[in-house]
Amino acid sequence: MRVGLLTSGGDCQSLNATMRGVAKALYNNMKDVEIIGFLEGYKGLMHEDYKVMKPIDFSGILTEGGTIIGTSRQPFKLMRVIGADGFDKVEAMKKTYRRLNLDCLVILGGNGSQKTANLLREEGLNIVSLPKTIDNDLWGTDMTFGFQSAVNIASEAIDCIHTTAASHGRVFIVEVMGHKVGWLTLHAGMASGADIILLPEIPYDINKVVAAIEKRTKEGKRFSILAVAEGAISKEDAQLSKKEYKAKVATRPYPSVSYEIGKRIEEKTGQEIRVTIPGHTQRGGSPCPYDRVLSTRFGSEAAVMIKEGDYGKMVGIRNNEIVRIPLQDVAGKLKMVDPKSSIIREAKAIGISFGD
Amino acid sequence: MRVGLLTSGGDCQSLNATMRGVAKALYNNMKDVEIIGFLEGYKGLMHEDYKVMKPIDFSGILTEGGTIIGTSRQPFKLMRVIGADGFDKVEAMKKTYRRLNLDCLVILGGNGSQKTANLLREEGLNIVSLPKTIDNDLWGTDMTFGFQSAVNIASEAIDCIHTTAASHGRVFIVEVMGHKVGWLTLHAGMASGADIILLPEIPYDINKVVAAIEKRTKEGKRFSILAVAEGAISKEDAQLSKKEYKAKVATRPYPSVSYEIGKRIEEKTGQEIRVTIPGHTQRGGSPCPYDRVLSTRFGSEAAVMIKEGDYGKMVGIRNNEIVRIPLQDVAGKLKMVDPKSSIIREAKAIGISFGD
Amino acid sequence: MRVGLLTSGGDCQSLNATMRGVAKALYNNMKDVEIIGFLEGYKGLMHEDYKVMKPIDFSGILTEGGTIIGTSRQPFKLMRVIGADGFDKVEAMKKTYRRLNLDCLVILGGNGSQKTANLLREEGLNIVSLPKTIDNDLWGTDMTFGFQSAVNIASEAIDCIHTTAASHGRVFIVEVMGHKVGWLTLHAGMASGADIILLPEIPYDINKVVAAIEKRTKEGKRFSILAVAEGAISKEDAQLSKKEYKAKVATRPYPSVSYEIGKRIEEKTGQEIRVTIPGHTQRGGSPCPYDRVLSTRFGSEAAVMIKEGDYGKMVGIRNNEIVRIPLQDVAGKLKMVDPKSSIIREAKAIGISFGD
Amino acid sequence: MRVGLLTSGGDCQSLNATMRGVAKALYNNMKDVEIIGFLEGYKGLMHEDYKVMKPIDFSGILTEGGTIIGTSRQPFKLMRVIGADGFDKVEAMKKTYRRLNLDCLVILGGNGSQKTANLLREEGLNIVSLPKTIDNDLWGTDMTFGFQSAVNIASEAIDCIHTTAASHGRVFIVEVMGHKVGWLTLHAGMASGADIILLPEIPYDINKVVAAIEKRTKEGKRFSILAVAEGAISKEDAQLSKKEYKAKVATRPYPSVSYEIGKRIEEKTGQEIRVTIPGHTQRGGSPCPYDRVLSTRFGSEAAVMIKEGDYGKMVGIRNNEIVRIPLQDVAGKLKMVDPKSSIIREAKAIGISFGD
Repeated sequence: MRVGLLTSGGDCQSLNATMRGVAKALYNNMKDVEIIGFLEGYKGLMHEDYKVMKPIDFSGILTEGGTIIGTSRQPFKLMRVIGADGFDKVEAMKKTYRRLNLDCLVILGGNGSQKTANLLREEGLNIVSLPKTIDNDLWGTDMTFGFQSAVNIASEAIDCIHTTAASHGRVFIVEVMGHKVGWLTLHAGMASGADIILLPEIPYDINKVVAAIEKRTKEGKRFSILAVAEGAISKEDAQLSKKEYKAKVATRPYPSVSYEIGKRIEEKTGQEIRVTIPGHTQRGGSPCPYDRVLSTRFGSEAAVMIKEGDYGKMVGIRNNEIVRIPLQDVAGKLKMVDPKSSIIREAKAIGISFGD
Repeated sequence: MRVGLLTSGGDCQSLNATMRGVAKALYNNMKDVEIIGFLEGYKGLMHEDYKVMKPIDFSGILTEGGTIIGTSRQPFKLMRVIGADGFDKVEAMKKTYRRLNLDCLVILGGNGSQKTANLLREEGLNIVSLPKTIDNDLWGTDMTFGFQSAVNIASEAIDCIHTTAASHGRVFIVEVMGHKVGWLTLHAGMASGADIILLPEIPYDINKVVAAIEKRTKEGKRFSILAVAEGAISKEDAQLSKKEYKAKVATRPYPSVSYEIGKRIEEKTGQEIRVTIPGHTQRGGSPCPYDRVLSTRFGSEAAVMIKEGDYGKMVGIRNNEIVRIPLQDVAGKLKMVDPKSSIIREAKAIGISFGD
Repeated sequence: MRVGLLTSGGDCQSLNATMRGVAKALYNNMKDVEIIGFLEGYKGLMHEDYKVMKPIDFSGILTEGGTIIGTSRQPFKLMRVIGADGFDKVEAMKKTYRRLNLDCLVILGGNGSQKTANLLREEGLNIVSLPKTIDNDLWGTDMTFGFQSAVNIASEAIDCIHTTAASHGRVFIVEVMGHKVGWLTLHAGMASGADIILLPEIPYDINKVVAAIEKRTKEGKRFSILAVAEGAISKEDAQLSKKEYKAKVATRPYPSVSYEIGKRIEEKTGQEIRVTIPGHTQRGGSPCPYDRVLSTRFGSEAAVMIKEGDYGKMVGIRNNEIVRIPLQDVAGKLKMVDPKSSIIREAKAIGISFGD
Repeated sequence: MRVGLLTSGGDCQSLNATMRGVAKALYNNMKDVEIIGFLEGYKGLMHEDYKVMKPIDFSGILTEGGTIIGTSRQPFKLMRVIGADGFDKVEAMKKTYRRLNLDCLVILGGNGSQKTANLLREEGLNIVSLPKTIDNDLWGTDMTFGFQSAVNIASEAIDCIHTTAASHGRVFIVEVMGHKVGWLTLHAGMASGADIILLPEIPYDINKVVAAIEKRTKEGKRFSILAVAEGAISKEDAQLSKKEYKAKVATRPYPSVSYEIGKRIEEKTGQEIRVTIPGHTQRGGSPCPYDRVLSTRFGSEAAVMIKEGDYGKMVGIRNNEIVRIPLQDVAGKLKMVDPKSSIIREAKAIGISFGD
């Protein structure tokens, strides 16, 4: 049995823990398993750049951040394009798969990578995929690995800001990763007592944001903290077409949305605003115990699927049970925060403003 | 609206976060709410020992460990006993409830405390309870607050032991809290790469434990780590009646089960065993972000129940949705690890031994 | 004995631990001590805005970030200016000191605040000051409280970036606090294995920075990490007069120096650069144990000085012993990183480039 | 240039960081350096069990706990003994040194290991040693690597106990590592607000310990925390000869001193005492940034010494400068806590009792 393995897209915590789970379960339950690790994601598969893995490679990596086989961003939209040099990426990947006599390919990836995984499935490859992303936006699974670790880092950042904000009596914006979905911002914001949370899914009215800050001031509270997703959007901007919005963002003099929101609050309140952007730290460091358990369970199930020859599916978790979701159901869909969901209602009940 | 509030039983992380959730949601959504905090659990209710809480009391406590109103262990079995002095505990609690004109009582507690909560419900008091325990053994809810924070602490301890075990080539036992149920040991063990996990729900055969260690030695691995629940039990002892077992434990020369297991392994393998007991640290410190979100959601729902007058229930979470469970369904039941559940199967698949 | 107490300047970790040390030692060793806490730094002293502190106020704050009495930035240069409204800040502070019959004033502050402390000393007030700053740039003391905690946070950020940089094979810049001095960047950079460290005290040559990155690439290393102080400066800019440099910075289209450095590296190497700015998180959160011990020792000594009536001095630590340094020696001086010091030599020996 | 390298004695944090420092500085500054890593400490040197190290082996280990080349306890007293089998350990080590044509030997170790290092120096080997121990008890250096990381772990444990002790109103004993010296207990205790600290260097009077607890109770404080060193000793026991004391300890029915102290307090106060023993976790896990900087500096200096051929010395730090201390001055001496030192005086000033 020859199993290909790759990690694709923006890196996150628990990639190594997941690969360890897959590998340990394979070695433990099947004979003559050989694992081929492709380097730097789909790139390695395209260019036959790989490493024959040994059991020792998966030892001691449970708590290590990053990925021992590297990764690279892969925009799906470029996938089918045949370059000027005639290089057909999909054909190249299929060729590698066949030349190496792989029985299947295990792919750890987020949205774009699952799309490509599904494409490879359609092309006849045996695929098992695993839900990797700090965004928790993969359709079909309640939870992705990486998410809870990222929540921890973003929460710690807001916790730190909390003490400094309280000491100085200031308004702080902490920008949390998430261009399209707000799970990370929502959880980190709730976990760390943010007063205002702005998500891509709930366009904000700047006047309501300002009102929320002023309400706190009136109550004698000397500071306010905003957890703002990278993709937070105002009600006006939400009216624009995708193209118009893109054009508008391109001319924005600020490096990110938080500076713009901060400036508008300053103009309206006269209060000095500070912006903090934890950025890529949210993807790094050791996975938290929650993720390590989840990754181990995911990896273990992937090995069972391989043993059973049950391909074309992504491992996920639903209602606390590990499940298998057909890749065609996953590909191209996003799991977004529903503004009417109970968690939003619960957050509002304790007084958190979403600016809506 | 006058709301009584108490925290009962062994303390754990996120008690303050939960009370903050309840209080913030009450103050935000109802007029004229007054919260009475009873000191040191049911004791305060019995002896009318309380403090009138103000909004400021619940401010800034989201990340604080412990409980701002204190707690005490309360063995339910003693609850109904009327002392030599004629003091009737239940009547005393009812009297306080009435003298203070409470509309309802919010109780944060584990198994014993939920039992008492149900008793008070039967006696006609309006009760809303919340699931507190590092053991995650409350029936009716998928998750209790405190559990994930305790998993983190126990996992960190095993992580630390990992590096020292690897450096010295030793067998280490880390004893994790849990006399009756093994959720905490199971999750901490899986999260930290324990090689052998012994749970109260899966009686162990010492020879299988030894075999698992020797298998590792044969594979060239210089160390083994055992995560052992306080209530781990051997197959022989599991045959004894409760009374016989208690008698046997009483004569045990070791302060805890791990020393006994360690000694038996030493005798059989000749290897030196080290025991580490993180003990009460597992209940302490700041709650993790996961627990803070859960606590906030629980607290928020409790406030809605109070507003609706929907009493006699415990707040819980099932399939990611916050739910309300009748107290009579919760009281007296334990949610245990099922030896045939998928998580155990997954753990075994990657090579973890449960000694069975 | 009536003791005034204030925390001034940018907040940092361990302010509360230090005040606890002072207060506990005063209460323990003197009779009839009353502590007056001025709110929001010198502002509170000017405007007689204070709170009479009680022993309980100092209980349980050892591990809490921020400052329980608030702080505010105070630019010394404005200190003597009498406003259009005729308000003389120094006279106002002296008046408060006298009206409240203070025996002395304990000031926790950094450079600017020590300058003001010295001014108040010259005006006849009894001053004991304590060295607060994450920058560790106070003259006369080997170490300030807050520094090691900030090193920890900045190091954690770089650690997180390390795993993501390694996974993607990228060049990352982490901007560390420090406009004038580089201690924080130097220690965080060394602690976290930064490849290049740029400090205000060692102007960099962009070509040498680029060469250091390319050397790593040639050695097969897929990523490089730069720890860059906020005040990092190029050799050319270091030639400019203060005024010219300020003018140049003002026209810079980037929000901070790291973006500029990143852009120059991109232009010269063609590699994509990512910038991360942990920002104010470096001032927040719980103080580390090192700082808590230091703060306790500092606070304890301050109380002895008060008991002895030994005023006009800042507490410090030199060669591991707590010392007292005359305020006139401290005021207006900066302790900078010496480019020829042994720690820089040691860092260079292991291959760290300072771009010089 | 051929350099032998070994890590000896109880493991601790920052061993890898130190070896990385030595190796990076050697590779960077000398040509044709080959490093031989002996496995499991002096054992590897005796039995010619080693691994030829490569630069890549030292990459990415800065933050890793444990030691990549293993270690073993080595009681110096057994060193010269020639076994029944005629095996002369010292001769065996010298033989390996010569057979492998080593130019020098770099030894990372604590007290016992430094003694052996000195013995090998006397036997004519070129030795450079580095001060490794969580105990900080090596003579000649202000600080050892590992100490601050261990302080962090012990402090975190006490912090966790703090919240649980406060919630329940209990007396807790946390036993901190340190049989002969109390630096670790002293610093962890001060850092975490322990009320009573018992050290080997300051024999305690149980009545004074009890008095300190009762004083707190009288002041309305519901809990007390004792930080007790493994080697804490009562005034009576301190009178015994070494032999008598050993005999007494051997008959003690408790697994460690804390249980005995706890029992005596229970008898005298009637209060229930809980004991927590973080144990070997204090040696494990990732080194803290402070240790990583220190290790890097130490390692860098060791490489300079090798380049200069300046052997027979241990690297240390004094008054913040890295220094070289002749091994004969280090061997066999302990740096203990002086009961009359300023740090003890400072601790007492804030009300900490040492039971004396």
